Amino acid sequence: MQIYADNAATTKMSRTAIDAMTSYMNEVYGNPSSLHSVGQRAAEALEDARERVAANLGAKPREIYFTSGGSESDNQAIVSAATFGAKKGKKHIISTAFEHHAVLHTLDKLKKQGFEVTLLDPHECGIITAAEVAAAIRDDTALVTVMYANNEIGTIQPIAEIGAVCKERGVIFHTDAVQAVGHIKINVKEQNIDMLSLSAHKFHGPKGVGALYSRLGIPLTNIIEGGAQERGKRAGTENIPAIMGMAAAMDEACAKIDENREKLVKMRDRLIEGLSEIPHSIVNGDKTCRLPGNVNMCFEGIEGESLLLLLDAKGVCASSGSACTSGSLDPSHVLLSIGRPHEVAHGSLRLTLCEENTMEEVEYTIKAVKEVVEYLREMSPVWHDLKEGKKQYVIQ
Amino acid sequence: MQIYADNAATTKMSRTAIDAMTSYMNEVYGNPSSLHSVGQRAAEALEDARERVAANLGAKPREIYFTSGGSESDNQAIVSAATFGAKKGKKHIISTAFEHHAVLHTLDKLKKQGFEVTLLDPHECGIITAAEVAAAIRDDTALVTVMYANNEIGTIQPIAEIGAVCKERGVIFHTDAVQAVGHIKINVKEQNIDMLSLSAHKFHGPKGVGALYSRLGIPLTNIIEGGAQERGKRAGTENIPAIMGMAAAMDEACAKIDENREKLVKMRDRLIEGLSEIPHSIVNGDKTCRLPGNVNMCFEGIEGESLLLLLDAKGVCASSGSACTSGSLDPSHVLLSIGRPHEVAHGSLRLTLCEENTMEEVEYTIKAVKEVVEYLREMSPVWHDLKEGKKQYVIQ
Repeated sequence: MQIYADNAATTKMSRTAIDAMTSYMNEVYGNPSSLHSVGQRAAEALEDARERVAANLGAKPREIYFTSGGSESDNQAIVSAATFGAKKGKKHIISTAFEHHAVLHTLDKLKKQGFEVTLLDPHECGIITAAEVAAAIRDDTALVTVMYANNEIGTIQPIAEIGAVCKERGVIFHTDAVQAVGHIKINVKEQNIDMLSLSAHKFHGPKGVGALYSRLGIPLTNIIEGGAQERGKRAGTENIPAIMGMAAAMDEACAKIDENREKLVKMRDRLIEGLSEIPHSIVNGDKTCRLPGNVNMCFEGIEGESLLLLLDAKGVCASSGSACTSGSLDPSHVLLSIGRPHEVAHGSLRLTLCEENTMEEVEYTIKAVKEVVEYLREMSPVWHDLKEGKKQYVIQ
Repeated sequence: MQIYADNAATTKMSRTAIDAMTSYMNEVYGNPSSLHSVGQRAAEALEDARERVAANLGAKPREIYFTSGGSESDNQAIVSAATFGAKKGKKHIISTAFEHHAVLHTLDKLKKQGFEVTLLDPHECGIITAAEVAAAIRDDTALVTVMYANNEIGTIQPIAEIGAVCKERGVIFHTDAVQAVGHIKINVKEQNIDMLSLSAHKFHGPKGVGALYSRLGIPLTNIIEGGAQERGKRAGTENIPAIMGMAAAMDEACAKIDENREKLVKMRDRLIEGLSEIPHSIVNGDKTCRLPGNVNMCFEGIEGESLLLLLDAKGVCASSGSACTSGSLDPSHVLLSIGRPHEVAHGSLRLTLCEENTMEEVEYTIKAVKEVVEYLREMSPVWHDLKEGKKQYVIQ
């Protein structure tokens, strides 16, 4: 049995998305900037995809820019809002301590350019409040950027409330919605979102393609200079097959959001229930205000990487946190931000399900994790110290 | 009959490339940063592709960075070399007046940051010499960036000679080889190329993927910040299916370079011969030191856009110049740079063949262009003025 439970890292493309993409690779191969009919068919496809992506977000087609993915969208949104703010003397940015590195590292770059960044710490439940954002806003705040749902612990932020606060104070509000799009209903207008980043491969679409929604009136700064594609804001020949694959995957995911949620929440809650039977374990993040497919737990006395490798040997593909930082020996900045001590943060496990997982797989996974945790604890000197009372348990 | 003669704008994916890409979409969907086996299969594919792309360029695998395409590669190469130079007080860059906008607009951005840019004008034949580059190098020159082959007129620059000059003077040499890779044999070590940009969709590979070759020892500056992918130099989940499609297309194109060249040169030369029978026409760029599939001509007294639309009606997909600027009413900066006056530059036609075109298509195209040029001239007041001697011909 192979169980893929790492859908927050990337998803398998859906049949619909693959079919959409391959048909455009085979048949509509033109460059949308070309005046001839082969190019114009590609241009029509491009605008069709733009309308569909916009409709799924409640945005206008002219507010959608296609990019190479979530990281590029995050970079461009943040740099654009910062540049726009700086022209009006606003050089303060508010974000959170548990953003994705595409946000945090872009903010680091801006700090070197003289911007001041306030990073709000989430509560232990993995959520920040709109009131905390409101309290941090200053007259010189150019941008608030708060992720929609955390990529490690899956907690969902009060985006509409934060959007309302930002609107009232005249501050641009960007959300990294890479983990949320296709999984949670989003309407940028109703939620007062000014800018939003998304990535197709997180909802069974192709890799290497994403979009940036940017409300009309916010001038974009180019990250990639060159040709006049995307109304002059993103150079490079448009990746029509991938863009069509993204539109197809997004239509499919958004149409099935309720149905998928119902299925996923059952599996997620059973996983949490089963794994919580492991002594000295703790769920990271609020148990219900989280993505329907996300489970993230810490197990005291073990090391996350060994847990993953042994689970993999049992056919369970999981993660200790973000795939983007899996080469790093540092504990997850997300788990530290919600107050987990280093030694506990090291023993984390993220299981992220999609609608193709089954309850049978969930039961198998619970059994596998229990066995592996027990096995690793047997070998762990830390665990023996804890058992023998030489050390104090952090997780009761 | 539909004849696609716009392969410099984009190519149709080869069957090999499509098959490579779809098999990875279906089967190897993991995130290469994931520790589990699904992720590790993707990581192995990534390094396999890196070795193949490197081998086709005579580079080391560690010198290859995957990007979203040629424009991103150009941006990153130029910004990186400029940043590296600036740290040593070198803020002068040499390039040419007929580069792609991905280069020229990046240079414009650097100018605003205090860099000084010298743009060399090509000769009327569309070529600059290594001696001209050498004469422009100063003690504070950080970078020479000269395209390998021009995207509009196809002329090939003396890259190895320019590389030798740069090496001797200790200046970083970047070449935008987007139009050359897969069509001309390249060896970055033998040609003393320090950095090189390429794009897969120009050699029958997928769109949305490219590579940057950067010699070991040149520190790269990130264009996209975030995760630690591509040794920390390019954030964003690696687009494995597209990268595998690119490697497959590159292997195929490079293996067939000689065979394709022989076929293409015959078709190109016949096109030039046939179209040169049109009175008051001129070939843009050297007739032999050009890409094997590139034909670019000007016809006096007509307007390029009308020419394209009528050719399209006859089934011939062509271009007036770069697809990336086709929305613009300005004449081609490339044609102006080789000394064509505005009124002549407006009457340009670019036909770019691939190995799938046939001699039958070439003969049809010659006939079609002749008919359309004659038809448009009949309707053109400028042409009548020329014929009646009220105006002087620019092209004899």
